Amino acid sequence: MNSFGVKLKVTTFGESHGKAIGCVVDGVPAGLKIDENYIQSELNRRKPGQSNLTTARKESDSVEILSGVFEGLSTGTPIAMVIFNENQKSRDYNNIKDIFRPGHADFTYWNKYGIRDYRGGGRSSARETAARVAAGAIAKLLLKELGVEVKAGILEINGIKSETIDFEYAKSSKLNSLDKNIEPLQEEAVLKAKKSHDSVGGAVLIEATGVPIGLGEPLYYKLDATLAANFMGINAAKAVEIGDGIESCRKLGSQNNDGITKEGFLSNHSGGILGGISNGDTVSAKVYFKPTPSIFKEQSSLNTKGEEIKYKLEGRHDPCVAIRAVVICEAMMALTLADMAILNMSAKMEHLKKVYN
Amino acid sequence: MNSFGVKLKVTTFGESHGKAIGCVVDGVPAGLKIDENYIQSELNRRKPGQSNLTTARKESDSVEILSGVFEGLSTGTPIAMVIFNENQKSRDYNNIKDIFRPGHADFTYWNKYGIRDYRGGGRSSARETAARVAAGAIAKLLLKELGVEVKAGILEINGIKSETIDFEYAKSSKLNSLDKNIEPLQEEAVLKAKKSHDSVGGAVLIEATGVPIGLGEPLYYKLDATLAANFMGINAAKAVEIGDGIESCRKLGSQNNDGITKEGFLSNHSGGILGGISNGDTVSAKVYFKPTPSIFKEQSSLNTKGEEIKYKLEGRHDPCVAIRAVVICEAMMALTLADMAILNMSAKMEHLKKVYN
Amino acid sequence: MNSFGVKLKVTTFGESHGKAIGCVVDGVPAGLKIDENYIQSELNRRKPGQSNLTTARKESDSVEILSGVFEGLSTGTPIAMVIFNENQKSRDYNNIKDIFRPGHADFTYWNKYGIRDYRGGGRSSARETAARVAAGAIAKLLLKELGVEVKAGILEINGIKSETIDFEYAKSSKLNSLDKNIEPLQEEAVLKAKKSHDSVGGAVLIEATGVPIGLGEPLYYKLDATLAANFMGINAAKAVEIGDGIESCRKLGSQNNDGITKEGFLSNHSGGILGGISNGDTVSAKVYFKPTPSIFKEQSSLNTKGEEIKYKLEGRHDPCVAIRAVVICEAMMALTLADMAILNMSAKMEHLKKVYN
Amino acid sequence: MNSFGVKLKVTTFGESHGKAIGCVVDGVPAGLKIDENYIQSELNRRKPGQSNLTTARKESDSVEILSGVFEGLSTGTPIAMVIFNENQKSRDYNNIKDIFRPGHADFTYWNKYGIRDYRGGGRSSARETAARVAAGAIAKLLLKELGVEVKAGILEINGIKSETIDFEYAKSSKLNSLDKNIEPLQEEAVLKAKKSHDSVGGAVLIEATGVPIGLGEPLYYKLDATLAANFMGINAAKAVEIGDGIESCRKLGSQNNDGITKEGFLSNHSGGILGGISNGDTVSAKVYFKPTPSIFKEQSSLNTKGEEIKYKLEGRHDPCVAIRAVVICEAMMALTLADMAILNMSAKMEHLKKVYN
Repeated sequence: MNSFGVKLKVTTFGESHGKAIGCVVDGVPAGLKIDENYIQSELNRRKPGQSNLTTARKESDSVEILSGVFEGLSTGTPIAMVIFNENQKSRDYNNIKDIFRPGHADFTYWNKYGIRDYRGGGRSSARETAARVAAGAIAKLLLKELGVEVKAGILEINGIKSETIDFEYAKSSKLNSLDKNIEPLQEEAVLKAKKSHDSVGGAVLIEATGVPIGLGEPLYYKLDATLAANFMGINAAKAVEIGDGIESCRKLGSQNNDGITKEGFLSNHSGGILGGISNGDTVSAKVYFKPTPSIFKEQSSLNTKGEEIKYKLEGRHDPCVAIRAVVICEAMMALTLADMAILNMSAKMEHLKKVYN
Repeated sequence: MNSFGVKLKVTTFGESHGKAIGCVVDGVPAGLKIDENYIQSELNRRKPGQSNLTTARKESDSVEILSGVFEGLSTGTPIAMVIFNENQKSRDYNNIKDIFRPGHADFTYWNKYGIRDYRGGGRSSARETAARVAAGAIAKLLLKELGVEVKAGILEINGIKSETIDFEYAKSSKLNSLDKNIEPLQEEAVLKAKKSHDSVGGAVLIEATGVPIGLGEPLYYKLDATLAANFMGINAAKAVEIGDGIESCRKLGSQNNDGITKEGFLSNHSGGILGGISNGDTVSAKVYFKPTPSIFKEQSSLNTKGEEIKYKLEGRHDPCVAIRAVVICEAMMALTLADMAILNMSAKMEHLKKVYN
Repeated sequence: MNSFGVKLKVTTFGESHGKAIGCVVDGVPAGLKIDENYIQSELNRRKPGQSNLTTARKESDSVEILSGVFEGLSTGTPIAMVIFNENQKSRDYNNIKDIFRPGHADFTYWNKYGIRDYRGGGRSSARETAARVAAGAIAKLLLKELGVEVKAGILEINGIKSETIDFEYAKSSKLNSLDKNIEPLQEEAVLKAKKSHDSVGGAVLIEATGVPIGLGEPLYYKLDATLAANFMGINAAKAVEIGDGIESCRKLGSQNNDGITKEGFLSNHSGGILGGISNGDTVSAKVYFKPTPSIFKEQSSLNTKGEEIKYKLEGRHDPCVAIRAVVICEAMMALTLADMAILNMSAKMEHLKKVYN
Repeated sequence: MNSFGVKLKVTTFGESHGKAIGCVVDGVPAGLKIDENYIQSELNRRKPGQSNLTTARKESDSVEILSGVFEGLSTGTPIAMVIFNENQKSRDYNNIKDIFRPGHADFTYWNKYGIRDYRGGGRSSARETAARVAAGAIAKLLLKELGVEVKAGILEINGIKSETIDFEYAKSSKLNSLDKNIEPLQEEAVLKAKKSHDSVGGAVLIEATGVPIGLGEPLYYKLDATLAANFMGINAAKAVEIGDGIESCRKLGSQNNDGITKEGFLSNHSGGILGGISNGDTVSAKVYFKPTPSIFKEQSSLNTKGEEIKYKLEGRHDPCVAIRAVVICEAMMALTLADMAILNMSAKMEHLKKVYN
């Protein structure tokens, strides 16, 4: 089950240390300008090895479009994109071949499938998210035509919260932090964990502006529920909040309701979604990532024979996966909204008549 | 898009004040004993009008099975269930006919569809969840055959947290509270809000024990992502946590990883899910519900002509929707797990051979 | 797997002699006028017991809309329709309880599910097609708004072919025959078979006019392929032809190609579909139905204990199922086209801009 | 909508003269031996340029597996396969750039999408079927483990019918003909058409033996209906018959019913399918292909400006597409049966218990 989306459907494939990873993006309306450089630039935002805050693995992550684009435009046929893996140091992984790393998917893949591509986590590696970012870039191009913009940044790291929300700043921050002043503390937390062979968690804030009213297909493809699935499905995600999230549940109704005026809503506790449908306000969500389980301290585990072992990881890993998750969250938000925009086209007969008459 | 699930698929229909609500449960394996009394008893747990803590609307919520069961057993064909609406005081709703209630789906349905069944929220009413509970009861019967049990209870109300987790107690609590000692404080908060024409939010803890290793279909029908969608899609839900959730993101990797031994995991920060697949430990999630937007205080809003109005709701409403959400959360967990159990059957060739040879 | 359609999705439920049969039609755009009398009139065209050419079973087939319609208009929410079974002479079926009727689904249902609702064929009964006709009526109402009309009639019975194609005549013919002059011969064949306790097969021609260019989603939801599935899935169907069908395969390319002019195509061998997409010409298909397996002659079979038996059916049956299949074929064509019309809305960016700008 | 299958899902991508074509096969159970040479050998059966009976286009059609296979076994993750296009003589197609070739999808793609990759038919080219053959090879490997074998051959060409059915002979026939004696006449018809710049149609018989009882998911994913869709979706297909097909509709019930004995069915008019479910007998279907529309005679058409033109095709084309369709039909049958085998696993509780206990 490696696809998501209903009419704008993304199928991804590939393992961390296989030949390639990639995706097929199906359902892109014809006539969309596909800027390959833009797709690559989005991938560059995600790629590893760009600072001392992320893994040292080097990948150029060069994307190649195999189909679906002709003379610079989408043709309505599936757009396949592939990224060949370069830095496949499989030998790094011989030592984990027979071991279930705590907090990783090793144990569950082994038990579910009876076989496991142990090299770098195989399919369960966050490397797969490059394919989502490539697909997400196309969704962003589509949304741009509708006036929708998606942005994200680091909200907290290791409990250290950004106090101001500056998406512009986040773009230039190597931490993708939303707060220039808090960033040094957040960075310090990452480096301290790294130094002590440990890792830290973090949270990402994602927002979309310019979203038309009406996106979301109740009752079982609601905008908020679908965002929840698409965010929770990102590696290491453990919680999703829409709008004020948990805070909402601790307030009174009179505090939490967003009053409505001609100019719009008086507040946005709801995160721009009512009844699973966008209300025209900013769509807002938060995603929380656990610290990467890849730490370099001794841990208790089992090997594939079922024997208890003491185990210490080697290799190259992100001390804080939340950092690189920022662009992935944007991609998932963009893909969700683009699919919803397409699905909403048939919400009323009036729309059908616009298209057919 | 009123269906969910892949092989065990539930389609629901019906509006709060229409003729009936109901569901079609497709994909139930043949030969499952369908205990109609049990389904009714689950519905009774959800139905309104049972205490001063929930809405005064009276509904017997009598379920009728229309198909798919023969001589007490499922036949492999779709099981349709219907609940006819009784207490349809539509006149109660004439006063909201042309008004967008703040925090409700009125505004978004109107804008999306250009038409709205305003009676009691129509399709967006939580009344629809009765259909989920009926479907969930069947999932529970199926899971029972596999040794899986699902349970839930109130974790907090208006910020007042249960300190002990006692699922047994929750069953007898009219608040579904997990903590006998904290319950009076939680109840007080509900009644206080009710008295002041306001409402409160709350949170539900859901757990499943006996879950086989291997449930969840990565990468885009992971167990945690699917639970997130299915919980976030419940009316008024604003946040979902898996396992330790947000807490995880504030810990170090060395604190958050669950060590593995022959006897099982040393801790369960992960909530029983690794890489989107159940690991054999207790599957655990938390869902947070906003205070119901139906309050009896004056609020600012618009009418359907676009004019600003001051508005005060009348009628019957739950002061705290989280209370009745407990059994709904159980249903969504059960349906998710049952679907995953079916999907996982083809994870390996070994299983195919068991079935076909 | 009791649903079909992608955005206009129909889920059916119910057994021949259960409490009820029905359907949920999801994805109907809001604002469509739903004429309940029209739906009933379509059902009346299908219902049994109307002449000596069809089964003597009497059913009023009264449809009841349970949801999704408000003040005469679709609301965008699922439309559930139910038909309660009246004439459930289950005792008629005690004699087939333990027997696999040749040519019927008894044997396969029993083996697949290990249990069987033997009363009147249970779920495998053509009675279920009433639900399709109800759903199809809604599709026809939608298509009418787009200028599309669907019509059908009997093309041949027992090898006796209609020579002229007169859809208008078919409407008043109790045989639904397309040819007034051939009809008496076709009727004679049916009555002769009936008298000799046997049954006959037949074929139906279905056409749709006014179909916009562009319907059909290549490569795996092509218009022709989807029609093939939806027709072949009707009880007793054994062959489907699009356009000239088999005849095409016996001609030369130069004979079969349809030349194109400003006024349209010079011929319509293709049946109005090229590359799986409607070309604006009349969409045309033929469906072939085997003689109903329900005959009153002695046959060889097995019982559920695996013993060989000689068996002679009793009860009430159609001597020629093709006759009542006419309106079912129309329904399946209409549902297919309506779904395709909705799906095609996002074929190009130009359409998105029409809806959103 | 470029995917098909429910649990064994195939997504294809690519255009005739783009960089590559390929597919992602999702849902292959883990632990299946994936023989890359076998997949290549299947592709070799389909590839063009092998005789004077097919197109002169030369393609090595070398398949490369990008993911989902580890140490020779499927891992349960998506298997992506890619075939890079080599012989992309795009210049051949400059002359058709602005022209709608009669009988082709040019006209409909242009109108649907507003843009068209005209090179060799782009996405609508039969070249895409190489991806299906690659996927089909994996399905065959899976089916082999269950004792199922799929085979096909040419039943007729230009009306000249094979009189004996010899699947063994078909394998060595360059025409894939089922009848050694009739083959010369069939070949003559192809060559004659070719010489006169024309083309001929043909038909393929596909059979599967060893199919377990129970495959097919009524009512809307029946085995016969799904085969119909999957066959009709192959380029140039215009008719599908299951079992005796049209012949059935011209017989009496007493002639068409297949009696049942302990040793099996007395005849197989049904084509091994009852009620949409396999009955354990040979599954049998026929697919009819129109003559390829690519002929070298003058034809009437339009250009993209809407002007009428006289037009004469140049280039390289199959004079009879049915020949190479044989292996494609096998692939579609194999993929259908493999998906059905997986889906049927949850037909009864007994199967669940086999897997989980």
